[in-house]
Amino acid sequence: MTVTEQMVKVAEDAKNASQILSNLSSGVKNELLKRMAQGLINHAEELIEINGKDLSAAREAGLAPAMIDRLVIDMTTVRSMADGLREVAELPDPVGEVTGMWTRPNGLQIGRMRIPLGVIGIIYESRPNVTADAAGLCIKSGNAVILRGGKEAIHSNLAIGKILKNELERMNLPSACLQVIETTDRDAILELLKQEESIDLIIPRGGEGLIRFVSENSRIPVIKHYKGVCHTFVDSSADYNEAEKICLNAKVQRPGVCNAMETLLIHQDIAETFVPRIAAAMRANGVELRGCESVREFAPDTLLATEEDWHAEYLDLTLAVRVVENINAAIAHIHKYGSLHTEVIVTRDYENSRRFIREINSSVVMVNASSRFSDGNQFGLGAEIGISTTKLHSFGPMGLEDLTTRKFIVYGEGQVRT
Amino acid sequence: MTVTEQMVKVAEDAKNASQILSNLSSGVKNELLKRMAQGLINHAEELIEINGKDLSAAREAGLAPAMIDRLVIDMTTVRSMADGLREVAELPDPVGEVTGMWTRPNGLQIGRMRIPLGVIGIIYESRPNVTADAAGLCIKSGNAVILRGGKEAIHSNLAIGKILKNELERMNLPSACLQVIETTDRDAILELLKQEESIDLIIPRGGEGLIRFVSENSRIPVIKHYKGVCHTFVDSSADYNEAEKICLNAKVQRPGVCNAMETLLIHQDIAETFVPRIAAAMRANGVELRGCESVREFAPDTLLATEEDWHAEYLDLTLAVRVVENINAAIAHIHKYGSLHTEVIVTRDYENSRRFIREINSSVVMVNASSRFSDGNQFGLGAEIGISTTKLHSFGPMGLEDLTTRKFIVYGEGQVRT
Repeated sequence: MTVTEQMVKVAEDAKNASQILSNLSSGVKNELLKRMAQGLINHAEELIEINGKDLSAAREAGLAPAMIDRLVIDMTTVRSMADGLREVAELPDPVGEVTGMWTRPNGLQIGRMRIPLGVIGIIYESRPNVTADAAGLCIKSGNAVILRGGKEAIHSNLAIGKILKNELERMNLPSACLQVIETTDRDAILELLKQEESIDLIIPRGGEGLIRFVSENSRIPVIKHYKGVCHTFVDSSADYNEAEKICLNAKVQRPGVCNAMETLLIHQDIAETFVPRIAAAMRANGVELRGCESVREFAPDTLLATEEDWHAEYLDLTLAVRVVENINAAIAHIHKYGSLHTEVIVTRDYENSRRFIREINSSVVMVNASSRFSDGNQFGLGAEIGISTTKLHSFGPMGLEDLTTRKFIVYGEGQVRT
Repeated sequence: MTVTEQMVKVAEDAKNASQILSNLSSGVKNELLKRMAQGLINHAEELIEINGKDLSAAREAGLAPAMIDRLVIDMTTVRSMADGLREVAELPDPVGEVTGMWTRPNGLQIGRMRIPLGVIGIIYESRPNVTADAAGLCIKSGNAVILRGGKEAIHSNLAIGKILKNELERMNLPSACLQVIETTDRDAILELLKQEESIDLIIPRGGEGLIRFVSENSRIPVIKHYKGVCHTFVDSSADYNEAEKICLNAKVQRPGVCNAMETLLIHQDIAETFVPRIAAAMRANGVELRGCESVREFAPDTLLATEEDWHAEYLDLTLAVRVVENINAAIAHIHKYGSLHTEVIVTRDYENSRRFIREINSSVVMVNASSRFSDGNQFGLGAEIGISTTKLHSFGPMGLEDLTTRKFIVYGEGQVRT
């Protein structure tokens, strides 16, 4: 089979499997996920051994230690994948929920019912645990899933896929509910992205290059989990202690993730007091600052920020800092440089809290809390498949519910239109 | 300016305008829509005169009479556009609605608030009334709109756009809230479809060719309003009178629209009685039948249906008819040939009604009612921008609410993550 034929088959098999999967009861899906979790535990040694192949190949290819680190499967990784599947099994099933029902004057009763999207393709890089995590969320929400991981983790991904598929087969369910693409050929992605008749959604997870490649080439709708250039605006009325605590947490608690703060905006009326204070606190935590001229006035050791710094997602202990004239300037800065991820205002002013919530249309807008809370688990949605920065369908932390759509259901007694 | 530069400017202007539009109160937006309606009425004569240019060009180009018919603007068309805008002004504003709010154990209060999508591009053919109808829905939901109609209606579209923009300017609102693309160059569409940084959603409205062109070339999410191959399944337990009434209405009340029935499936146990009856009734209404061998057994004058007929969206007084073994075969037929638009079961059997509702995942699934009800107005959503057959974001009749997305809003008291 050519790559095209292979991908057409993968997509069609998934579509056929999805019709069975979409009608499974929650009980059957939960049982399946728990068995998959146990399957991973039972085959942990085998999995860790196969993972060794990817690790040696990575070392031979001279991959950076941080990259190799992401590939490692050990007992902790296996347990965490298994726990993840069990947690998803415990979450409420969104499928079948009727989100509203009303009666029309002619007696027609109309409602909207949650149904699976159908077939979801996940295209990801490095971390092999995504294979189990994404599969769990897709299956729980009644969707067939096609997984295409990075070539660095191909042996590990296939091995995880085999263990999970084994449990599908043992429960007499179509094994095409979950497919891991075997070829690491990039053409396979291109062919997959053309199967709009069978695949309903593509989610790319990885770096900017991968996301661009996928969204430029896909005929299937794509939900991007793109970068987080998250802002915190410290208003003139802010409580300094609270502001310092929130800013430090947002920057240093885990700098390498998308909900960490990248740019700090400070109201000019408090710059003289707050800039030296936060600069000292940040430096004490190993953070390098890049500031505008006004910041440098009150914290002279600060590097001068360039235009690039306002766009930067450092994912590191680096912070861009800017003094702004007022809340209008803060909002304008966020509109210009933000990535629609998460923005925070620290304030004691009622009107400004309202304005910030109303006028900032990023996926998450917060008052007086650390941007690090921008997360499906922290929000109480359960596990998340990512944080969408695409406005359509799902915006912000994306849980099980957002892996479904809604159909209209209509109950009549012979009504016809006149 | 090159076409590329023009389209970049159009998209950026729209994005800037959308930031103002997204924060307008309902009162201001409603006032604007009412003034736009009055503007159309006040300039009706001028508009009808300009429309004459498109009509003569169409006649010169030898367009089919049906095509020319769709281009005509007369007093009825103008009044209907104005009424449409006034009706949208009366609809509830979805923007700002908080669809849920909950408190986490750490005291964080989290909610989801409806916000406009931002900038919506509508790419459509022929009918110039779409210019006003689509503009009204987009503006009411706080979205800037970019309109790109067919070249046959270019003078009419620009004239309608000018009247509507005039009212924006009179209310000191950015005129880029509404833009009608002036060039009829097809390259302009291609360039527009690349502006993913500024445009949030593309809705193509028109024939299969246009929709394919747009979805294959767009980097921006596309919601398709595709064809309706709508099925009605008459179950063995159906009341014959009710079934006949529903089928006739679904086929002949307005055959040229996407929610008309195209394929009738009949349970084999009632074929001997119901096939001759419905065949006679359809023929009495001028409907040509194309049936399977079993249909021809009980209605001998029927043409033999080919594989193509099961896929066909006739939009005409033609109907494909098939006798099926049971509800499983009916569901399998719909899965294979359906277009995810609207499917109906006529039955008196409780279990089959439940199975049909549960197992058919088209955008609208009905029991004992005519498929012709599949419509935003009929469902009580108010005016609709179309009927989406894309599962993502909006599936089925698409009203104002589906032109919005939801952001997360978070109220804290200094919480940080540990």
